Amino acid sequence: MKSMKVGLLGLGVVGGGTWNVLRRNAQEITRRAGRQIEVVCVAVRDVAKARARIGEDVCITDDPYEIVNDPNIDIVVELIGGITTAKALVMLAIENGKHVVTANKALLATHGTEIFEAASAKGVMVAFEGAVAGGIPIIKAIREGLTANRIEWVAGIINGTTNYILTEMRSRGLSFEQALAQAQHLGYAEADPTADVQGIDAAQKLTLLASMAFGIPVQLSRAYVEGITELNAVDIAQAEQLGYRIKLLGITRRRAEGIELRVHPTLVPANSILANVEDAMNAVLVSGDAVGQTLYYGKGAGEEPTASAVVADLVDVTRLHTADPGHRVPHLAFQPESVVDIPVLPIDEVRCAYYLRLSVNDQPGVLAEIAKELSNAGISIGSMVQQPPDQGEASLTFLTHQALEKNINQAMLAIEALPFMRSKITRLRVEEF
Amino acid sequence: MKSMKVGLLGLGVVGGGTWNVLRRNAQEITRRAGRQIEVVCVAVRDVAKARARIGEDVCITDDPYEIVNDPNIDIVVELIGGITTAKALVMLAIENGKHVVTANKALLATHGTEIFEAASAKGVMVAFEGAVAGGIPIIKAIREGLTANRIEWVAGIINGTTNYILTEMRSRGLSFEQALAQAQHLGYAEADPTADVQGIDAAQKLTLLASMAFGIPVQLSRAYVEGITELNAVDIAQAEQLGYRIKLLGITRRRAEGIELRVHPTLVPANSILANVEDAMNAVLVSGDAVGQTLYYGKGAGEEPTASAVVADLVDVTRLHTADPGHRVPHLAFQPESVVDIPVLPIDEVRCAYYLRLSVNDQPGVLAEIAKELSNAGISIGSMVQQPPDQGEASLTFLTHQALEKNINQAMLAIEALPFMRSKITRLRVEEF
Repeated sequence: MKSMKVGLLGLGVVGGGTWNVLRRNAQEITRRAGRQIEVVCVAVRDVAKARARIGEDVCITDDPYEIVNDPNIDIVVELIGGITTAKALVMLAIENGKHVVTANKALLATHGTEIFEAASAKGVMVAFEGAVAGGIPIIKAIREGLTANRIEWVAGIINGTTNYILTEMRSRGLSFEQALAQAQHLGYAEADPTADVQGIDAAQKLTLLASMAFGIPVQLSRAYVEGITELNAVDIAQAEQLGYRIKLLGITRRRAEGIELRVHPTLVPANSILANVEDAMNAVLVSGDAVGQTLYYGKGAGEEPTASAVVADLVDVTRLHTADPGHRVPHLAFQPESVVDIPVLPIDEVRCAYYLRLSVNDQPGVLAEIAKELSNAGISIGSMVQQPPDQGEASLTFLTHQALEKNINQAMLAIEALPFMRSKITRLRVEEF
Repeated sequence: MKSMKVGLLGLGVVGGGTWNVLRRNAQEITRRAGRQIEVVCVAVRDVAKARARIGEDVCITDDPYEIVNDPNIDIVVELIGGITTAKALVMLAIENGKHVVTANKALLATHGTEIFEAASAKGVMVAFEGAVAGGIPIIKAIREGLTANRIEWVAGIINGTTNYILTEMRSRGLSFEQALAQAQHLGYAEADPTADVQGIDAAQKLTLLASMAFGIPVQLSRAYVEGITELNAVDIAQAEQLGYRIKLLGITRRRAEGIELRVHPTLVPANSILANVEDAMNAVLVSGDAVGQTLYYGKGAGEEPTASAVVADLVDVTRLHTADPGHRVPHLAFQPESVVDIPVLPIDEVRCAYYLRLSVNDQPGVLAEIAKELSNAGISIGSMVQQPPDQGEASLTFLTHQALEKNINQAMLAIEALPFMRSKITRLRVEEF
């Protein structure tokens, strides 16, 4: 049978991994796919360097448009990253009737709706398993494995860098800065770690997961995003004492009023399965009304784990490219005409439990006044712990029952105005799942 | 678009769950599949009872052949269980050009090769996600999500009944008989628990996983199967003291000499992810050369979790039924012509670490003689623990390094012949993953 001809844009970490895996496992992959998947051309910045790496028998170009416009190429694999050039290349590939495989979450979370519409109109596939949680087949699980379910919520550790930093902060007592430096030293964090530590990378992935779970358009701009840069060792230790660990979670949940879409540090019970996903590992927990909770765990980044997802997409496209486009798996899990614009709730309307840590003057009546303000805002206290006072300062930590975020904010404002308060309240969200 | 017409054989636990899920989530499922999936006829033993349950607007028959021969039906869902009648119905459905969805692991592990061949020849699909690990989409993960990988091994907790029993034995100190009685009382174990507690159910599932992981024929008869009926509280406690938990694992591994295919109680490190899969939950750990280790976790049985898998299969078949049969996902992950009959190794040729517990007379020189026999058989000791002697009897527990099972057997024979031995050696296998 005729081989599938692939053009590879980029030979960096994931591009190089994809090249290696396709070469090394060529026989195994052909036994599965039923035909050979062949990289016929690679576009890179430095042709000489690429030539030294991958040899003489493949075309190498420094012009990615040469690949996107090559009539012999069936599938374009976009692994150059970034948004502007990547978008132009992907849109042109679609226009030229080529299928696209990409691991570019920033591109899809920003322009996914437009890209998927163009692909549907042209009858080509845009596959993106590598865009979320590396080699874990979570997109396949949600789009295909759980189709029977009304999905209720998805909660995931979908950024390995921050999970590594949080693991080190908790287990070895490092500060955020120390753990970040160590992550950079080990190659888990980039020189500019902003997208990871501020939660932006996780929000891009979560946005895609939410669209597929609930059949809503891709809308990164409506996600609430809070990173881990403000977390300190006191709260990590205090959480542990209360039986919790702090994880940077992406959470999306269907509520009667709309969809919650939020990334933030979250207290989860220390004996829960998500709490025990440590180091740079990723895991996504999905709750469906029929199946209950299922979890998907593995490496969320890296050369070959991400390449594993890219190549799985190549096999999928190879299998499905002769199928009637109307019967392929829809890009966002639901048929395009039945994607519904359910509103994404602002963070004020989110409901969860809260961790509140207060520094107060050690004087009588403090607890009563705080409890009164919480009660005024309709917030019910689950538990409270007081640290022994130190130099006239007492530390109080509250775990509340479920409450609306705007009510918590109202209570915090009122409490912070009280005369015995020493500093701003530290507020973290809590999920029990 | 024309709906897909489904005939349902059986309205028991999984059949009833499938009916419920298809009804309750009809709208959500149609939004995904792009067309309605409609149960048009149900075959049951007791028509009146079924009529009372599912109402008047669906055909109900007590003759399953009526469904299998009905030219209006596109997909037959076989949920009656057992092997003989189920096989006849499935083969006839295939002959009649219908797609088949089944959760019948006993049927497929026994007659899978024949059934899949018939289906391939006829150009129809036999989908069986519900046959392994309930609602966890593990078949999809192995057949599609991990296609880039040379899979190295699969290890899973794929029987919820025994996992529940082992959890209760460890956490509450129950005997096997007590834990089994409790499992039966709670509906986790059947009145005749043989297939579960003797490891047969797990072996059926493992056999299917092995075929898909390595591209080998289905061959249940070559699996090594050891259940949990002989496990006692002493070994569970002793394992815990050594930092291990005992799980009934299905393990299949590719080695240079052939394929390991085995179900047995296994010591796994207490802090490993498999050790912490408790109660009736299932989890499958897959190691691939590109992706590394990925884990899939959820409920492995029950009405709606298994129905979740059956309905996902219905959606898959609905999506793929217009596709060229040569491009569908192969039944056993690899194209039929490239399934290779790699030999399955007999248990004698399996290699792992071992736990050996010995009761001996408390006298000098015992340890030296045991160590000599282990050394004669080429077995290296990792660690040894001795319990304080009690009434002249001492208990010694060894953890060996990796060894061939036949060498362990040879050493055990020699040691059991020594005069100071009080009883047979308790031998368990150990895996670190």
